[in-house]
Amino acid sequence: MTQAIGYAAPSANAPLAPFHFERRALREGDVAIDILYCGVCHSDIHTARNEWHNSVYPALPGHEIVGRVTAVHPSATRHKAGDMVAVGCMVDSCLECRECKAGYEQHCLNGATLTYNSPDRQTGENTLGGYSDHIVVREEFVLRVPDGLDPMRAAPLLCAGITTWSPLTRFHVGPGKEVAVVGLGGLGHMGVKFAAALGANVTMITTSPEKGEDARHLGAHEVLLSTDRDQMKASRSRFDFILNTIPVAHDLHPYLQLLRREGAMVLVGAIEPLPSIHGGMLVSNDRLVGGSAIGGIPLTQEMLDFCAERNILPDCEVIAMQDINEAYARMLKSDVKYRFVIDMASLKQEKEAA
Amino acid sequence: MTQAIGYAAPSANAPLAPFHFERRALREGDVAIDILYCGVCHSDIHTARNEWHNSVYPALPGHEIVGRVTAVHPSATRHKAGDMVAVGCMVDSCLECRECKAGYEQHCLNGATLTYNSPDRQTGENTLGGYSDHIVVREEFVLRVPDGLDPMRAAPLLCAGITTWSPLTRFHVGPGKEVAVVGLGGLGHMGVKFAAALGANVTMITTSPEKGEDARHLGAHEVLLSTDRDQMKASRSRFDFILNTIPVAHDLHPYLQLLRREGAMVLVGAIEPLPSIHGGMLVSNDRLVGGSAIGGIPLTQEMLDFCAERNILPDCEVIAMQDINEAYARMLKSDVKYRFVIDMASLKQEKEAA
Repeated sequence: MTQAIGYAAPSANAPLAPFHFERRALREGDVAIDILYCGVCHSDIHTARNEWHNSVYPALPGHEIVGRVTAVHPSATRHKAGDMVAVGCMVDSCLECRECKAGYEQHCLNGATLTYNSPDRQTGENTLGGYSDHIVVREEFVLRVPDGLDPMRAAPLLCAGITTWSPLTRFHVGPGKEVAVVGLGGLGHMGVKFAAALGANVTMITTSPEKGEDARHLGAHEVLLSTDRDQMKASRSRFDFILNTIPVAHDLHPYLQLLRREGAMVLVGAIEPLPSIHGGMLVSNDRLVGGSAIGGIPLTQEMLDFCAERNILPDCEVIAMQDINEAYARMLKSDVKYRFVIDMASLKQEKEAA
Repeated sequence: MTQAIGYAAPSANAPLAPFHFERRALREGDVAIDILYCGVCHSDIHTARNEWHNSVYPALPGHEIVGRVTAVHPSATRHKAGDMVAVGCMVDSCLECRECKAGYEQHCLNGATLTYNSPDRQTGENTLGGYSDHIVVREEFVLRVPDGLDPMRAAPLLCAGITTWSPLTRFHVGPGKEVAVVGLGGLGHMGVKFAAALGANVTMITTSPEKGEDARHLGAHEVLLSTDRDQMKASRSRFDFILNTIPVAHDLHPYLQLLRREGAMVLVGAIEPLPSIHGGMLVSNDRLVGGSAIGGIPLTQEMLDFCAERNILPDCEVIAMQDINEAYARMLKSDVKYRFVIDMASLKQEKEAA
């Protein structure tokens, strides 16, 4: 059977609908994967709706993929049929530049190939993502899902997980560090879990007391209400590190002033023009503001291994493939705790019924 | 003789003119200094003209001070009469908070006392700076000028020097690092000298081929013309660190895109609202942008010792105290290579003639 099925957006304004396509024949080093679960990321919506003005249609999203290897090209050595594996936001890169060689394939100087909506390096064809029953990926971009890690709940680790794990570990978040997380969505909730697991004292910064309570259940030690002037003032120059997961542009000053000397705030959500920052806010306390993009393959594997060892998993709501459009609507209302994961059994049933 | 003379701005719109004041009596731990030289910093102009809207008049600027100890309070142990010493941007701080204890007095949680235009911690009187023949400072804020360091040329190290030394050493600029300096004024020229002395490959980024040539003479290995699109494009993702000394707000994107993975650009000049940064520019290559404020006392001493050992000194133009208003006018036209230093002998002659 070389026919695959997925759910794709036929155009910017249309809902996602079933889409049939030919499986890619195995090339050198390729691994064929039977997709079991795929997480639903905000980027999926941006691409389905052409909100980044670069979508190619049909657009088939999904880059939080967990599945089982069904076949490998004879030249592939890293994985074998039957292995539980995962694929994140990238499926290829040059593997020859200094960034690829250093394990930062997401910053490939020749441009990484994204899991969806990206030209295949060999054919130029538009890549199709994980909202599908099947995907073929070169072995270097296929991760091992460690034994004991729930495959369904592992799915969001491939984007929401690594996106938060990367800056937290880069900035040495751990015991003795005061760390804040701003925003409690798919990324924020993983930020809280990871920062707590790494041993930091974790504060959730939120406008909502309810979200504050939720964050405590996820592992936050303290809650700071950003609407409370006195609380915010009392927390000035307090944090070593702030993980900012707010997905839209916003004034950074209220958070920047909370950074202590040489503290850093890293943005992982607001990939758009930001309001003006005052130079004095950076000079004061020698502060830093930065960004972070997912993570390289070695770091992603390290994170998966850490999650298995420490039993750290996203909080997920499982949906059927057929519910994707409704899921998008709910995500836009922040009505999900904290990540939708598509169970691809639903798609396979649809295929068999057809 | 308890009377001192200095040059002060009597109001925001008046030129600096002679100003007589009483010397401060020595308090616990105080050191009295006969000022020999004082560098002229842009902050002096901002304060003299109330451009930061916080000036107290008469405003007597100057925070790049070198002189000789004339007397010490009996309780002072760090310096003795006859020592060549220096005073920078601070003359006091709480010395008890975590930042002071860590040697970062400039970030004192209770607010450092600046050398001029700042309330004295004990009397609340407005501090008067180094455009004077005399100053009294508590010993913890008095630096040693090592033997062999030219006292005149050492003066600008106390602000221009430490302001560039601090971020360069914080970000581990050294052999194997690609470092760029943007802007070639008092700070930029020290940035070039220090970065080269620390062993980095140093690129001057400038709009002017002439400034590029000047930078080569100061130690820069390469010149990048920011007006040359092709050169700028070819330098994308190249630099580990960029020291940005431009003293006014400007678009950061052309420089940010030059940062390689995890590279940082630190601003030391533009203490004002900055134009919007696109979040994607930070997320791409996991970039950082930050600020840096002078440096603590231990680091300032380390820098002075390094300069003495390696014979690194600012390029200066010596002026008489009476020339200060003309010097300000020339600074505003960037007509100085690279720092004016006032020879206080001129002031003492004026005092004696009076």
